[in-house]
Amino acid sequence: MSDQVPVLTIAGTDPSGGAGIQADLKTFTAHKCYGTSVITALVAQNTTGVQAVQACTPDFVAQQLRSVLEDIDIRAMKTGMLFDSDIIRSVTRTLREHYGANIPPLVCDPVCVSTSGHTLLRPEAVDDMITELFPLTTLITPNKSEAELILSTRKLPSNITNLADMLSASQDLLTLGPKAVLLKGGHVISSMQDVLRIAADHPEMRIFRDGLLDENMEILQITEEDIAARSLVVDVLRDKDTVTLFLRPRINSTSTHGTGCTLSAAITCALGRGNSLIEATDLGTAYTHLGIETASGIGKGHGPLNHMHSIMPRNIPQSTRSVPHPFTRLLIKSTTDIWKQYVEHDFVKQLARGTLPRECFLHFIKQDYLYLRYYARAYGLLVAKSSTFSAIDAATKTIINVITEVTTHKSFCAQWGISEEELQSIPESPATTAYGAYILDVGLQGDASRLLMAVAACLLGYGEVGLWIKKEAAKPGTWVVLDGNPYTRWIDDYSGEHYQEAVRTGIETIEAMAAADPPSPARLKEWVLVWERCTRLEKGFWDMALGLL
Amino acid sequence: MSDQVPVLTIAGTDPSGGAGIQADLKTFTAHKCYGTSVITALVAQNTTGVQAVQACTPDFVAQQLRSVLEDIDIRAMKTGMLFDSDIIRSVTRTLREHYGANIPPLVCDPVCVSTSGHTLLRPEAVDDMITELFPLTTLITPNKSEAELILSTRKLPSNITNLADMLSASQDLLTLGPKAVLLKGGHVISSMQDVLRIAADHPEMRIFRDGLLDENMEILQITEEDIAARSLVVDVLRDKDTVTLFLRPRINSTSTHGTGCTLSAAITCALGRGNSLIEATDLGTAYTHLGIETASGIGKGHGPLNHMHSIMPRNIPQSTRSVPHPFTRLLIKSTTDIWKQYVEHDFVKQLARGTLPRECFLHFIKQDYLYLRYYARAYGLLVAKSSTFSAIDAATKTIINVITEVTTHKSFCAQWGISEEELQSIPESPATTAYGAYILDVGLQGDASRLLMAVAACLLGYGEVGLWIKKEAAKPGTWVVLDGNPYTRWIDDYSGEHYQEAVRTGIETIEAMAAADPPSPARLKEWVLVWERCTRLEKGFWDMALGLL
Repeated sequence: MSDQVPVLTIAGTDPSGGAGIQADLKTFTAHKCYGTSVITALVAQNTTGVQAVQACTPDFVAQQLRSVLEDIDIRAMKTGMLFDSDIIRSVTRTLREHYGANIPPLVCDPVCVSTSGHTLLRPEAVDDMITELFPLTTLITPNKSEAELILSTRKLPSNITNLADMLSASQDLLTLGPKAVLLKGGHVISSMQDVLRIAADHPEMRIFRDGLLDENMEILQITEEDIAARSLVVDVLRDKDTVTLFLRPRINSTSTHGTGCTLSAAITCALGRGNSLIEATDLGTAYTHLGIETASGIGKGHGPLNHMHSIMPRNIPQSTRSVPHPFTRLLIKSTTDIWKQYVEHDFVKQLARGTLPRECFLHFIKQDYLYLRYYARAYGLLVAKSSTFSAIDAATKTIINVITEVTTHKSFCAQWGISEEELQSIPESPATTAYGAYILDVGLQGDASRLLMAVAACLLGYGEVGLWIKKEAAKPGTWVVLDGNPYTRWIDDYSGEHYQEAVRTGIETIEAMAAADPPSPARLKEWVLVWERCTRLEKGFWDMALGLL
Repeated sequence: MSDQVPVLTIAGTDPSGGAGIQADLKTFTAHKCYGTSVITALVAQNTTGVQAVQACTPDFVAQQLRSVLEDIDIRAMKTGMLFDSDIIRSVTRTLREHYGANIPPLVCDPVCVSTSGHTLLRPEAVDDMITELFPLTTLITPNKSEAELILSTRKLPSNITNLADMLSASQDLLTLGPKAVLLKGGHVISSMQDVLRIAADHPEMRIFRDGLLDENMEILQITEEDIAARSLVVDVLRDKDTVTLFLRPRINSTSTHGTGCTLSAAITCALGRGNSLIEATDLGTAYTHLGIETASGIGKGHGPLNHMHSIMPRNIPQSTRSVPHPFTRLLIKSTTDIWKQYVEHDFVKQLARGTLPRECFLHFIKQDYLYLRYYARAYGLLVAKSSTFSAIDAATKTIINVITEVTTHKSFCAQWGISEEELQSIPESPATTAYGAYILDVGLQGDASRLLMAVAACLLGYGEVGLWIKKEAAKPGTWVVLDGNPYTRWIDDYSGEHYQEAVRTGIETIEAMAAADPPSPARLKEWVLVWERCTRLEKGFWDMALGLL
């Protein structure tokens, strides 16, 4: 979903947040659209009803609208509560002045009366809404009572009691100028029988079912009999060529405050993204339906919908110029103490001073030789777990790097009189087995991402150790001794360009992985645990080398 | 993050969506808080400046505020633009009337003048803000010029040009009544040297660094020298006991419209969730900083922040009463055609009619015997990939079920004169190898979730086939023949309670998996691909049986 498609609502307010521009902005944000809003009237309301209304002046509505339109390229817009004729005229005149004949998709939710019976559009303004606004609209979204009021204003048959009435009413509404009509069925009782009867007469009609069992879903244990017996909500979408029904099970809920606002806002988002009217209606009704069903009962009256059911928190921040490696930072920061104990270990310090006993270093090098055999195998497993040739290539290159590293180990050992045969027959210390076998176990148990976490602590950690020693060595009066230090070559290897290049690639790989497949909280926790465990095992490896365990 | 913590903003508007209650509502929504909003003034503004202001009457501000407070249990609130003394008094009086002495955490963003120089708080009202509002606040969040204005109003030293000035200014601001002061450093030049100098004099001071390298992060390739040279933004948080600095690299950006609104709204969310003031400030400044850095340049002037960087779409809807199995539905709906070809395959129809040639059925049963050996092994792999004993138990039970299924196969075969020895030596058809080996390959390559996807098409599909035949058989004038059908036992087995119980468990398992670890788009796509591939391989298996391949 590309971010930040600019959309606009022109409507009244609801301080309690469930309806009006507040519900619209929440819906826009949940759809990752960029919300703008022009206020027509301030309404002191909450879930129990409307306490007071203060309309804006038509001029100030126009001023707000110009502030938006002159600055931002709006892709789709909606209207809600428009209050009176002057505001309607002010809105349509400003739109025409700005856009000429090329108005972006415009959804009109013809709000007239609040659930509690408060007037949100003056009765004499209904005719102006039809005459002035409807001809500009892509879609109008009346409910039963709004449709009845609009139709009766134009002396058209206006009694809507069943699905058949809805079909003819939608046809009559279409004659009033909008390009399409979505007549909402929330206040009309319909059953599957009604739908089947109507569908039999209209074979061209499309039917969308949501939350109802389709064929070949017997295993979901709701029988067709249950559905047939169930009361449905059927929304009717009609344009000049097609009629589409959207069927859903009726939900028993009082969390319906702002349903119309939310639906028209969600449809506006989808139209702004370039969806067709049918797609947009399908998406919008699904979003709204789930908003009602997952509502949490805020307020004392008819509560608001849950506008946030469709979003989740992002657990790893986006990469930016100032923080290009957010995931690696998160890993290191989540294990600050143990990471420091690993990097600045006594073994490392003695090695950097050149005071590390030779037998400790040799013990370390021998065990590291055995460890690297596991490590190379882990990358072999990573090859097997890869999906692309580039991933296969990257893991294979690491195996080659490890083989090079092992060659260095062998030459270190040869230098100190240890033959390759002796290396092969060294007993493996428990710290080595624990670390090596753990990585392979992670590789068996999880996917490539988890295995990448398991191999990262070694790759990144040795790179950090190398750079840390070099940094300390560069300080005035440093404690590090490089001249005449028997381990200088080791330090040079890990701080050198060749190894650091591998570290950089490793960092880019895990960052790309996290960005391409942002983890859920559970998955991120797993990743961090693997990283932390390996960091501890690294520290354990130095402990072993110092303690000759 | 628990959903729907109710929070409130009391502020002016910005139709263009970057500041005011609009920015606040976006911030609240991105934090999954339930946003409410009281409007103090309508402002026609956009990214280029303020075009006009129309303040609300103090009574109507109070009326909106009562509408919210009397209905909704607000956990934290913020104020933004308050415009004049009467509105300030109206707000504080209403808050005191409603809450008495127990006002929830209140953050005051002391908005005075717009970036473009427009008055957002009348000069004579500054003193009322200090006298009336500050004593009620948990935190005030002035920037440099607001702090200077407030301090000069009270004839206190008001020239803030460096970090040292900020520290003393924050102390003076604290004497004006708020419980804490966050003095924002966006308009003050600071460097790492300044911070180190100040920190040396104040050892008790806490320092938070974000987007700056900590120790043991050498591998991230930004050297301490670079940081030291860099211009920093330092925000100073002070309460009566502690001073905390928040350090970040300065971003070169013009997308700063609504920064103050966004920061105070984000802090309000964190306070509403029960975070401490230091935690809330850390979270809020991090959110705001990233909002500036990821902004997409909307509008012609100083653009809005990106309020949506911290959220991602949820790809599988929440489970609800009317749709308890959203993920299974998504899987079936995403493969409608191929799923139907599998469930209603000619093989199945001939089997249900009893007209399936015996040799086809025997060929199928023999190959299914070979397939089930892969299938049992796949669950063995699933055991190895499990993290909990309950998952190990569930996978193990399935292996036992498969062994029972195999016993039935053997008895079918015995009935038709095929011995177990013959079964063992049957050549495996390519369709069998393809399906069986594919499942094991998925098991090798991915984690437990992906393997669960691979085994689901078989488990669920045979359950669906059994129920579909039974449903067709129950229809008047059915084409299904159960009496005297040699395959009735097969049909009874898969439609029977024992197998259906396993199907239900399978459905609950994948639903729980998707709910506990909501997949990213990439991961969901992988899951659906595995499901689709297996559904095709199932169809291929029937094809093989009919064609005797």
